[in-house]
Amino acid sequence: MLATLFVVSFTMTAFAADPLPSWNAGTTKQSIEQFVAKATRQASPDFVPVAERIAVFDNDGTLWAEQPIYFQFLFALDRIKALAPQHPEWKDNEPFASLLKGDVKGALAGGERSMLEIVMATHAGMTAEEFEQIVKDWVATAKHPVTRRPYTEMVYQPMLELLVYLRANGFKTYIVSGGGIEFMRPWTEKVYGIPPEQVIGSSIRTKFELREGKPAIVRLPEIDFINDKAGKPSGIYKFIGRRPIAAFGNSDGDLQMLQWTTAGDGLRFGLIVHHTDAKREWAYDRKSAIGKLDKALDVAKKHDWTVVDMKKDWRVVYPFEKE
Amino acid sequence: MLATLFVVSFTMTAFAADPLPSWNAGTTKQSIEQFVAKATRQASPDFVPVAERIAVFDNDGTLWAEQPIYFQFLFALDRIKALAPQHPEWKDNEPFASLLKGDVKGALAGGERSMLEIVMATHAGMTAEEFEQIVKDWVATAKHPVTRRPYTEMVYQPMLELLVYLRANGFKTYIVSGGGIEFMRPWTEKVYGIPPEQVIGSSIRTKFELREGKPAIVRLPEIDFINDKAGKPSGIYKFIGRRPIAAFGNSDGDLQMLQWTTAGDGLRFGLIVHHTDAKREWAYDRKSAIGKLDKALDVAKKHDWTVVDMKKDWRVVYPFEKE
Repeated sequence: MLATLFVVSFTMTAFAADPLPSWNAGTTKQSIEQFVAKATRQASPDFVPVAERIAVFDNDGTLWAEQPIYFQFLFALDRIKALAPQHPEWKDNEPFASLLKGDVKGALAGGERSMLEIVMATHAGMTAEEFEQIVKDWVATAKHPVTRRPYTEMVYQPMLELLVYLRANGFKTYIVSGGGIEFMRPWTEKVYGIPPEQVIGSSIRTKFELREGKPAIVRLPEIDFINDKAGKPSGIYKFIGRRPIAAFGNSDGDLQMLQWTTAGDGLRFGLIVHHTDAKREWAYDRKSAIGKLDKALDVAKKHDWTVVDMKKDWRVVYPFEKE
Repeated sequence: MLATLFVVSFTMTAFAADPLPSWNAGTTKQSIEQFVAKATRQASPDFVPVAERIAVFDNDGTLWAEQPIYFQFLFALDRIKALAPQHPEWKDNEPFASLLKGDVKGALAGGERSMLEIVMATHAGMTAEEFEQIVKDWVATAKHPVTRRPYTEMVYQPMLELLVYLRANGFKTYIVSGGGIEFMRPWTEKVYGIPPEQVIGSSIRTKFELREGKPAIVRLPEIDFINDKAGKPSGIYKFIGRRPIAAFGNSDGDLQMLQWTTAGDGLRFGLIVHHTDAKREWAYDRKSAIGKLDKALDVAKKHDWTVVDMKKDWRVVYPFEKE
């Protein structure tokens, strides 16, 4: 609560002077400011009407951290532990048996199928409202294994400023993540100022039913849509129905979203966050299992997308660094 | 002199103060006004914060007409005729052969499968941008078989006023239709003031690909989601991520949306448009093949939803009546 207040008041105070105080001066910061100036100046040949100022942001590794593994996976592990007493059969069945022994690598030996079983066991079978409460409780109590901070404090201060800056300039900001849509919605409004209806993500199927005469949405153990890689442009088209003019990502999972966004007519902006700061955050790219950034880094140069060098361009990484 | 001034200014004030001039005075109009007053008065025990003022509207039969058959079906028929020269094989294959002979009933003898074939032949195979243009061209030129008016003029004036009234009171208005999402988006902003990202509907799958190096979204001949009946609450949950506080529909296809919306905690509002005016529009309900209103009419009484008697409650039906 105090942390949230701090972030909000910090951003507001800073706004009066420099809307992006956590960005060091340089070409990266300039490219952002120039894009916004062109989009918003009535006299600009690149002027974009407010209704078309749509900006899409990846979440994992772009708005919050994603190491040592996607936070949603850590949520699923915590849920497996919490649910284990109700599932004595898990002791003898993979991937659960390995997980409960703390052997994540062994659990994931089954590949995609293991991952799917973990997701379904932890994300399905309850009502929409019940799942929302489970996520809220976890976000309020769980701590990151390295920093021991709540996960929602491991967001990037420069990106928070960027979100506020874009919205102050008439942009509508969306999350477009490979992560679960309902895993993000319970906290994105408070943390990023992005309401649930502006969150796009992977989803499972749901079913409407009357439970003892009471209408309920029940979450089913079936994948509905994977909003990653080539799925991102499709997800954006489905949810928003128009092409964004700016896209922000950090990995090859964002490549197609950036390609589609920046290939449209008129003013366009693409940005990739490159994780280069092993000291304040993590340094990883072409060979990382999490947030692999390889092809998109090559394409970025070709298309003149802005590449953020986290170490050089960000004066602050996390909001709590200023405490 | 003073008296005259008083009378004049009184009438003018009274006129300016009525945001719903096409609604006749009575309990229906009152129920709408009372709901909005309760939701927006800070002192009201039923006060609803702006972020939660979500109102969802069915489209066919609720915002625009749907007789003698859903307008999107007439669009599909026009497309079949336009595409026939490129498909000589249609002459010998159902449902196309019957359609091209003008025998709609024969074409639909194959039931759901025939309908699906018609939809896929006319709604898939092109890029997102190409389909948008096709819809725009059709909307700009096609005429309704009975009124000879453009379809987008066959919208309900009282509902247009209701949309504006709700938005002026901080509501976010959404369309939640069984119709195709991309069939509506190209014109809903202009006609209803509802932007593409606030349109929810049935969809087909899409695929991102590079066409000669250019990123494109291609529409595939596969159903993605049917946003009707029990699908409507699931569609709302997927797109908006929260339960609306007001829902407006006209048929059994809207029943579950109204049930789910009005079963939430706090202030809720459900409304059903009952087509009772055979002279100005159409009169139909329990036995109609299009827009069947049967079970929802019974449930409406039980749940105290507002039922609009079109003949009695609407002073004007279509905007062009005032010409």
